[in-house]
Amino acid sequence: MCEECGCGEANEVEVEVEQDILSENNRYAAHNREHLDKHGVFCVELLSSPGSGKTTLLEAVIGSDPGLNISVVEGDIETQRDAERVRAAGADAFQLTTGGACHLDAKLVHGAFHHIDLEKTDLLFIENVGNLVCPAAFKLGAHQRWVLLSVPEGDDKPGKYPRAFREASVLVITKTDLIEHMDFDPDKAEREALSLNPYLKVFRVSAKTGQGIPELVQYLKQGVLSKKA
Amino acid sequence: MCEECGCGEANEVEVEVEQDILSENNRYAAHNREHLDKHGVFCVELLSSPGSGKTTLLEAVIGSDPGLNISVVEGDIETQRDAERVRAAGADAFQLTTGGACHLDAKLVHGAFHHIDLEKTDLLFIENVGNLVCPAAFKLGAHQRWVLLSVPEGDDKPGKYPRAFREASVLVITKTDLIEHMDFDPDKAEREALSLNPYLKVFRVSAKTGQGIPELVQYLKQGVLSKKA
Repeated sequence: MCEECGCGEANEVEVEVEQDILSENNRYAAHNREHLDKHGVFCVELLSSPGSGKTTLLEAVIGSDPGLNISVVEGDIETQRDAERVRAAGADAFQLTTGGACHLDAKLVHGAFHHIDLEKTDLLFIENVGNLVCPAAFKLGAHQRWVLLSVPEGDDKPGKYPRAFREASVLVITKTDLIEHMDFDPDKAEREALSLNPYLKVFRVSAKTGQGIPELVQYLKQGVLSKKA
Repeated sequence: MCEECGCGEANEVEVEVEQDILSENNRYAAHNREHLDKHGVFCVELLSSPGSGKTTLLEAVIGSDPGLNISVVEGDIETQRDAERVRAAGADAFQLTTGGACHLDAKLVHGAFHHIDLEKTDLLFIENVGNLVCPAAFKLGAHQRWVLLSVPEGDDKPGKYPRAFREASVLVITKTDLIEHMDFDPDKAEREALSLNPYLKVFRVSAKTGQGIPELVQYLKQGVLSKKA
């Protein structure tokens, strides 16, 4: 070992600060959940790598049923692009920009709730920053977290990024129309994800061809109904 | 605003800890650079989203010229899969697993240097954890950082994840064989990246068809030669 090396040293200040941050975040997440439940809103967080098709999936879902009042909190580091896209598709949307931060936290999302009309919303999506790692550590208060894995990313990703798959309720394999052009085995991806989290509900969809979208919308409606009961 | 809200509060402890971490990291990065220069090794860091094709690009480069001695430091959260792949392609490799952390830091990479024979290496790649956000903040000591953007991720990503593009020397647009199946305009992606960073050298490649790989290898060889001079 080099004498400059000190590998393996623990840094207690870092650990304590991390615990404080997560504890504060959990407090805000619980408060967000109270807001949602009070207004009878079913809320789903979308988490994935950049470019896995979160916004495109939202566009497909928003267009599927005019009777469903959908709002979206969009999270990005920069730009208003995703909020503009979902508004054009017909949903109410508020764009959060983190200005560099790699994930949404519950406090940021709470601020966004004040810009969304929860009373007129049946189904609220929170689209996290494109990042398959950091967002997994921060609960936002949603009723379900969905993790997306797109075909071009490869079927080996669940094992390499396990936390995102462990802490989700639903896995959506997206861009299935590309399977014929890629070396991607959806059964393998699904098997590996289920080995990390046997309770995952799995959908395979293509927003381009519409494959799997009706089943996914039907599943969402069950959640919406459960909040109106 | 809710009375539970305290949005906008600054947390001085968080800021201080972040500055300490980055300052320690920069010290290790400078030390890593000294190691590389002492051994005449040209070092390139690869940074991108999960599944953008970092390992596949390495496989293509490793197979392209038997005269080039290539070693690889692989970074992942979990699994040894990528190190196994580049070893099978013919390179020496050491796998770092962060056990949850979202990026490599210079101290981790320094530890890996003790498992790589730098004296027998002409060209060292450091493949970062798949994450287009956090790794951009941590210098590792490499001579160049290359950011990869794959066609399926979409041509709107530079503006949404600007730091990764601002702090790179090279942009590699990967999986160009998929352009005919996707709504991706490589000129638009390149233009937006160059608006963030006009000094980016841009390559368009397909590891599948081999398009652009010879030009990229030629460019790498210039770096290798510069370290032997």
